[in-house]
Amino acid sequence: MQNKRFTHRLARIRRKEDAPEFGFGSISTSNDQRMMNKDGTANVIRLGEPKFSIINLYHSLVTMPWWKFNISVLGIYLITNFLFAVIYYVIDPAGLGGMTFKTETDRFLEIFFFSAQSLTTVGYGRLNPVSLIDSTVAAIESMVGLLGFALATGLLYGRFSRATAKLLYSDNIIVAPYKHIRFPEADKALMFRILNARKNQLIEIEAQIMFAYNEEVNGSVARKFQQLKLETEKINLLAMSWTIVHPIVPESPLYGLTKEDIESVDAEFVVNIKAIDDTYVQQVYTRTSYTWKELAWGVKFDSVISKNEQGITTIDLKKISSFKSAE
Amino acid sequence: MQNKRFTHRLARIRRKEDAPEFGFGSISTSNDQRMMNKDGTANVIRLGEPKFSIINLYHSLVTMPWWKFNISVLGIYLITNFLFAVIYYVIDPAGLGGMTFKTETDRFLEIFFFSAQSLTTVGYGRLNPVSLIDSTVAAIESMVGLLGFALATGLLYGRFSRATAKLLYSDNIIVAPYKHIRFPEADKALMFRILNARKNQLIEIEAQIMFAYNEEVNGSVARKFQQLKLETEKINLLAMSWTIVHPIVPESPLYGLTKEDIESVDAEFVVNIKAIDDTYVQQVYTRTSYTWKELAWGVKFDSVISKNEQGITTIDLKKISSFKSAE
Amino acid sequence: MQNKRFTHRLARIRRKEDAPEFGFGSISTSNDQRMMNKDGTANVIRLGEPKFSIINLYHSLVTMPWWKFNISVLGIYLITNFLFAVIYYVIDPAGLGGMTFKTETDRFLEIFFFSAQSLTTVGYGRLNPVSLIDSTVAAIESMVGLLGFALATGLLYGRFSRATAKLLYSDNIIVAPYKHIRFPEADKALMFRILNARKNQLIEIEAQIMFAYNEEVNGSVARKFQQLKLETEKINLLAMSWTIVHPIVPESPLYGLTKEDIESVDAEFVVNIKAIDDTYVQQVYTRTSYTWKELAWGVKFDSVISKNEQGITTIDLKKISSFKSAE
Amino acid sequence: MQNKRFTHRLARIRRKEDAPEFGFGSISTSNDQRMMNKDGTANVIRLGEPKFSIINLYHSLVTMPWWKFNISVLGIYLITNFLFAVIYYVIDPAGLGGMTFKTETDRFLEIFFFSAQSLTTVGYGRLNPVSLIDSTVAAIESMVGLLGFALATGLLYGRFSRATAKLLYSDNIIVAPYKHIRFPEADKALMFRILNARKNQLIEIEAQIMFAYNEEVNGSVARKFQQLKLETEKINLLAMSWTIVHPIVPESPLYGLTKEDIESVDAEFVVNIKAIDDTYVQQVYTRTSYTWKELAWGVKFDSVISKNEQGITTIDLKKISSFKSAE
Repeated sequence: MQNKRFTHRLARIRRKEDAPEFGFGSISTSNDQRMMNKDGTANVIRLGEPKFSIINLYHSLVTMPWWKFNISVLGIYLITNFLFAVIYYVIDPAGLGGMTFKTETDRFLEIFFFSAQSLTTVGYGRLNPVSLIDSTVAAIESMVGLLGFALATGLLYGRFSRATAKLLYSDNIIVAPYKHIRFPEADKALMFRILNARKNQLIEIEAQIMFAYNEEVNGSVARKFQQLKLETEKINLLAMSWTIVHPIVPESPLYGLTKEDIESVDAEFVVNIKAIDDTYVQQVYTRTSYTWKELAWGVKFDSVISKNEQGITTIDLKKISSFKSAE
Repeated sequence: MQNKRFTHRLARIRRKEDAPEFGFGSISTSNDQRMMNKDGTANVIRLGEPKFSIINLYHSLVTMPWWKFNISVLGIYLITNFLFAVIYYVIDPAGLGGMTFKTETDRFLEIFFFSAQSLTTVGYGRLNPVSLIDSTVAAIESMVGLLGFALATGLLYGRFSRATAKLLYSDNIIVAPYKHIRFPEADKALMFRILNARKNQLIEIEAQIMFAYNEEVNGSVARKFQQLKLETEKINLLAMSWTIVHPIVPESPLYGLTKEDIESVDAEFVVNIKAIDDTYVQQVYTRTSYTWKELAWGVKFDSVISKNEQGITTIDLKKISSFKSAE
Repeated sequence: MQNKRFTHRLARIRRKEDAPEFGFGSISTSNDQRMMNKDGTANVIRLGEPKFSIINLYHSLVTMPWWKFNISVLGIYLITNFLFAVIYYVIDPAGLGGMTFKTETDRFLEIFFFSAQSLTTVGYGRLNPVSLIDSTVAAIESMVGLLGFALATGLLYGRFSRATAKLLYSDNIIVAPYKHIRFPEADKALMFRILNARKNQLIEIEAQIMFAYNEEVNGSVARKFQQLKLETEKINLLAMSWTIVHPIVPESPLYGLTKEDIESVDAEFVVNIKAIDDTYVQQVYTRTSYTWKELAWGVKFDSVISKNEQGITTIDLKKISSFKSAE
Repeated sequence: MQNKRFTHRLARIRRKEDAPEFGFGSISTSNDQRMMNKDGTANVIRLGEPKFSIINLYHSLVTMPWWKFNISVLGIYLITNFLFAVIYYVIDPAGLGGMTFKTETDRFLEIFFFSAQSLTTVGYGRLNPVSLIDSTVAAIESMVGLLGFALATGLLYGRFSRATAKLLYSDNIIVAPYKHIRFPEADKALMFRILNARKNQLIEIEAQIMFAYNEEVNGSVARKFQQLKLETEKINLLAMSWTIVHPIVPESPLYGLTKEDIESVDAEFVVNIKAIDDTYVQQVYTRTSYTWKELAWGVKFDSVISKNEQGITTIDLKKISSFKSAE
């Protein structure tokens, strides 16, 4: 059920400045559905997509986890190998020289290994194609092999060159007590924390929080969006952790609201982070979202930074999500 | 024939703000010629281009469709293979060891397969170069083979790394009834729709519509350009479809015009879309154009979004161009 | 010798707005030396550079012309091949199996071809290493070969991926009669012309002209820079040719000057063009410069655009530099 | 110990404009610890990082020096080779054909070379797998070999494509006498110098200096940051050297301070340089820092630029850090 006070506040804010466009349209979500998944993809089903496309296949092979990728490469190698072996076996098993098999099974296995030796272009030569038809198949197979490994080269490079930056987000977005000379009217702030999970340097990091909520308009519920103003929108270097802070000033759509108010509108906080990966000199964009279920109220983050005995600043990556009661 | 009312309106607008430069000069087009093709390339013939250049060849191989590319690779492999076979056959057919041919045709075929085994560096070895001259040619051929597959690696990577984003545009640009709190003076709007055709995430999408038309100036017809102001110029994430809308307010060059007015000036709407492909972290630029023949008047788009039984938002890509009468 | 009128004009302009920094410092040039070469590199000698660096070698191999690159690759292949052949020949010529030589020269040649077969990993196998020492050298050689071709793959891709955009500049920068509604005070303009020399689409093209000249300050001559304001600084698409125009309005440092005035200060017009190559989605930066010797006064460019019999716009790339007297 | 005058000055400045966020938080440093290392990485220890990750391994292989990289590649090749040799030797040493060994050591070595011939896919064939189990291992080994060299291709390309720009910084940041028409109130300026160490052209170079210092706030010492305004923040082309200058005007946090004042607050000057590498068309970001120990007071830089006998401007890279007393 929609909170009256909340609706009234937001309507007042919106009169001043128009809601920014976020790209999700205005369809309301039910309580159990988030708009954006934790990994930053939209929680949407797409119909009418082409069943197969070479680009989508490439896309999958570049973005899948390493264990899946390795199994895929091994699988494709084995299947291709096997298919060519079947071709030799079916069309001209006697056309290969140097065979030493005794049983029919061994014959097929020996052909299978000849196929492997052609596909990888190792071509020892004890086994070698003699008949014209087998020579033709072998010529095709070694070309397929080379092109396959040319593809693998591109895939490996594609995987490495895009997978070089990774941010750790705190598990929760919190509302913590807050005091800042620039925001004297705020006594609370909404905040979450990020850390660089890799050794690469991240520079020119920018953050954005979008607040999505349901609103009753003439009896029907529509999804609305408000961008939340941040204490700091950009930092030069992500050397330590960075706590992204939205001070809850009177102009904030969250001002004066309780935890229950925020739950009642099915709130979701959508987060965009933009940075430059200094090692590979490329832009990095990450997104995530926090629903009201991931909102911790009245707590504060534990520090991730300390000094070791030599006086050098030390960051503990494992404490990124750690917080305690603010009482 | 030029519409007087139209000319007058546009002259008034232009006094205020200068027409933006679009790069097409001011040459008028005839009714059957569009300035920009549907795929975003300029409809222009270029004379005096160099007949052949290695860069243009690379360009062709990277941008041609996959079936053409595969045929080209296979063709180049076969031709190179064949050329080297001819060289061995002509200069020293007896210089190869391990031959088993019985007829002259078989001899050439066996040499052809030796050539294939050298080019792919599989080098089984039953067939092998013995004479100095054949050894020399074989050394060259295997180097050519390796460089060829080095090239293929680059081409495959080039094809994949650039071909990763694709937008679906609605077939028509439409003029639909329109009502928006920010544009109270507009009762109609010009609009078209886009969708992401691939699984990649597209973020920071920006749109621009340029209106091109003929205008009589002192009796001669010149081509003029006006940029159309959009309801929203940028969205954060192309999660759903995006309808790009130009509200036809009094300041719009289209205000008060009929469908016939727009036809009479040989109108063309040139569209630029700019986005970031989040998966491969690269800028994406697409362009297209709608001529007056692709303008549907007084209709409205069908929704592409619905909810399935689990309450998850669902997009139907096939409905992108679907519209119905606005009556 | 420095023109008084000129000095006075420029001093007045500079009081209003500070000269932009260009990066060339303020060292004056002699009449026969340009600051920037036609290809956009600085005309500067650098001392104290390291004699050799692997990065500079890579840089040379990526930027050298194709014929040089091909010769280099072939040369490196031959030399490596030869060096390994010498090693086998010197340390253990009897350690190779399958040899058929009769003379000592043939022996070396056969070893040379064994070396080639190892380097390209074709490894036919008639010739094969038997002794431990030759097996060791062969194992190293085939690894070197593979790494060498891995390098060649990167070099080829590097060459293609950077060499994809090319602009044609007109040979001369001209001062032509000029009339434009936005610049009523200008009756002359400085202009030059560019064209896309390749089939790639170039979009979002931006231009900048920097005017460099000598100025007497307290008796010593210093080099000064002024950025020239352009009629249009950016166009959306380089579909046709683009004439970059600096209207010579009263605020221009060129206003009221004669051709001789411009010569007397050893003028150089340094040009920066920035664009996006739409096919490979990359920024393109090109620079060139025109000295006063390349300035044509009182002429106008011939049109490069015409219509063919089907009414399609046609551009003639060969006319890019063509101009005629403006009388 | 904190200087009173200094604290007072900075407090006054900060009231006007808020300190920019730099990403280092507000932890003070001890006198012997710098925040940023000379190579631009943060002087921070990270706990809780995953022990091993394939991305961090790739990262190390791309960023390590060439001699380490070459040794790593050779080492990985030898170890893989050796491991497979052990497998053949242990599971089925009799399964290989063509062996000629006499002692058990020779047997292992011959197997080792067979392994090398499989891994590089040279596959001469005198040694070849006959048994099923050895054929299987050999099929796996040649696939591993090809994938390994596919990886090496990507690594080599990754190393070259990112390692193309390098700036030389002067060893010291200096405070030199200064006179400039735009800053009449400044008689001193803080400055350092950069040079392009490579042959690539660098364009659109931007600089930033951040001044970090300790400040006593209510008895505890906190780290504060001030961005220093520069005479010129951007130049078009790094053709010569560029001296980055902060004029010490009354608004500067350094105004009126002595060398001792600056030492007493444990000052560190953090420098960001941003440029475009014109040859490979990529953004380049470099950072470094100067602590108060690297500050030279009352000196001036020697010129790096001269003219040779032909009148061509000459830069001496070795003089980048050279300065002399300003008396």
